[in-house]
Amino acid sequence: MSDSCVMLTLADLCSFLKKRDNYLVLTHASPDGDTLGSAYALKLGLKKLGKKVQVICCDEIPHKYDYFIFDHDCDFAPDTVVAVDVADIKLLGNIYSQFENRIDLNIDHHISNTKYAKRLYLDGNAAACAECVYEILDELGVEIDRDIANALYTGVSTDTGCFKYANVTARTHEIAARLYEVGVDAADINRKMFDTKSKSRMELEMMVLGAAEFHFDDRCMLLSVTSEMQQKTGCTGSELEGVAAMSRSVEGVLVGISLKQTGDTTFKISLRTYEPLDASAICKSLGGGGHKAAAGCTIEGDLAFAKEQILTAVKKALEEADAGSDTTE
Amino acid sequence: MSDSCVMLTLADLCSFLKKRDNYLVLTHASPDGDTLGSAYALKLGLKKLGKKVQVICCDEIPHKYDYFIFDHDCDFAPDTVVAVDVADIKLLGNIYSQFENRIDLNIDHHISNTKYAKRLYLDGNAAACAECVYEILDELGVEIDRDIANALYTGVSTDTGCFKYANVTARTHEIAARLYEVGVDAADINRKMFDTKSKSRMELEMMVLGAAEFHFDDRCMLLSVTSEMQQKTGCTGSELEGVAAMSRSVEGVLVGISLKQTGDTTFKISLRTYEPLDASAICKSLGGGGHKAAAGCTIEGDLAFAKEQILTAVKKALEEADAGSDTTE
Repeated sequence: MSDSCVMLTLADLCSFLKKRDNYLVLTHASPDGDTLGSAYALKLGLKKLGKKVQVICCDEIPHKYDYFIFDHDCDFAPDTVVAVDVADIKLLGNIYSQFENRIDLNIDHHISNTKYAKRLYLDGNAAACAECVYEILDELGVEIDRDIANALYTGVSTDTGCFKYANVTARTHEIAARLYEVGVDAADINRKMFDTKSKSRMELEMMVLGAAEFHFDDRCMLLSVTSEMQQKTGCTGSELEGVAAMSRSVEGVLVGISLKQTGDTTFKISLRTYEPLDASAICKSLGGGGHKAAAGCTIEGDLAFAKEQILTAVKKALEEADAGSDTTE
Repeated sequence: MSDSCVMLTLADLCSFLKKRDNYLVLTHASPDGDTLGSAYALKLGLKKLGKKVQVICCDEIPHKYDYFIFDHDCDFAPDTVVAVDVADIKLLGNIYSQFENRIDLNIDHHISNTKYAKRLYLDGNAAACAECVYEILDELGVEIDRDIANALYTGVSTDTGCFKYANVTARTHEIAARLYEVGVDAADINRKMFDTKSKSRMELEMMVLGAAEFHFDDRCMLLSVTSEMQQKTGCTGSELEGVAAMSRSVEGVLVGISLKQTGDTTFKISLRTYEPLDASAICKSLGGGGHKAAAGCTIEGDLAFAKEQILTAVKKALEEADAGSDTTE
């Protein structure tokens, strides 16, 4: 944490943005819809105020976001560095060291924010960072046009599972309503973001589900994504996202486990739980962490060992939960 | 069409609802979240005005909707019959003949409504019938409580694929925002409606996807749900919903075909298309019909014959589309 991180109000932030120019906007590594939507909406909005802005991400931007990626005028020397939707400077990826102590402004919605920037605008109630950017552009008096709306909607929609998750609030829907009023291409965006998968992804899902295991009276589903499956289908990187959600999608399942092989003897475990189970506590016992409903850890060993480790921890948690409900009922 | 169907304004409708009492509210057969959410929200709302109301559906109501199904006081003789989300009286199912010419009021959002009732309140711009019911309760001055909100949200959310489809408007999101303000259990509802499938459904999906066929340079995906698959997995009835959507979920696919075996030699075909293809025109050529992006037909014959029939029609449409784009480019 920087000693000198100044927390900004919305008004402070807007007066800062008006004063400065020549912006470099940074997104987090492995960019998702929210970091990109927030960065490009901010860029398009600041450009309407006559500012120069470029966006940088250390990783390649997936083509599915092309509809709001406008990369014009990068011919200027940036002097104000802004990180959006980046809770920790290390999430900038391999470019992070060159920006250490050099982030002028951080706009974020993660309450876990490490306050690494000189100034921070944080709205922990926002479901998406794009909600914050909407408020900022609104406060700046920028007219939200369709391009900006598409970028903002992408952020809001992807970070909420299309308004499905518990982070959604009345404000989230109110912002969506405003974006519809300026002609956001929501149905097209949602189709790209949620309803289109590659053929290789479909093949991978079939392999993964074909090898699904059910444990502890079907209260636990375990999915493995082995290196072999990734090689056979050619499905890698961001295409592997969402397997963790699949592990909790079957009726009666309280704990979804997914194991993703990331090295010969390395498995990244994602855990998804429903009440009363605490994914974070289970993963902590294996050196990981996270939130109550979603957490993760890494296990070194072969697949059988990784499964045994996580299943033992889950079994213990289920037994404790059973014992707890016995005494209260 | 009834000769004497009177189109009501919102104000007319509300004064009618205030005057009458002892309501029987009818939903359509194979009830979905919108017809049930609309019916029960109306019931709960009218009860707040001191009215007696019962809801009837010819089919069993799936248990997943239990959270807003409150069936108290059915001990009265109904004298005002209201159909909600029922575009055609035949959609009432096997009870329809006993209500012919006896529907006092129809509340609906389908522009294809056949005007079979004595009075019709139709809002063709509403994404869900539950949007209409929200407007009605609001106009009646009924305070929307959490139970009513849960019923209304279920209607709106299920009829829009959780705000994903092209039928969503700014108004849809505005209504959702109001429902959040009174504490709607949206995340739980969405989990039940969208993210939970039975084990048998998962097994069926694997079988269906395992037998997926790709045609015409992967621009067409064909999925078959045979009687054997239904028997093997025990997955039937409403559990088979959504296979049509799966058929269009792979990148590059312009036409998704799903064939569901409903008898020894009977196949119900669902077609899902993207521009420039017209599902309705393709299905019409086989005696069916529907909308531009989603249509259906029935083919009598064995599986091979049914596939050949629909694939021939799709091939023709793809060739016409290709020829069209050749001349305009």
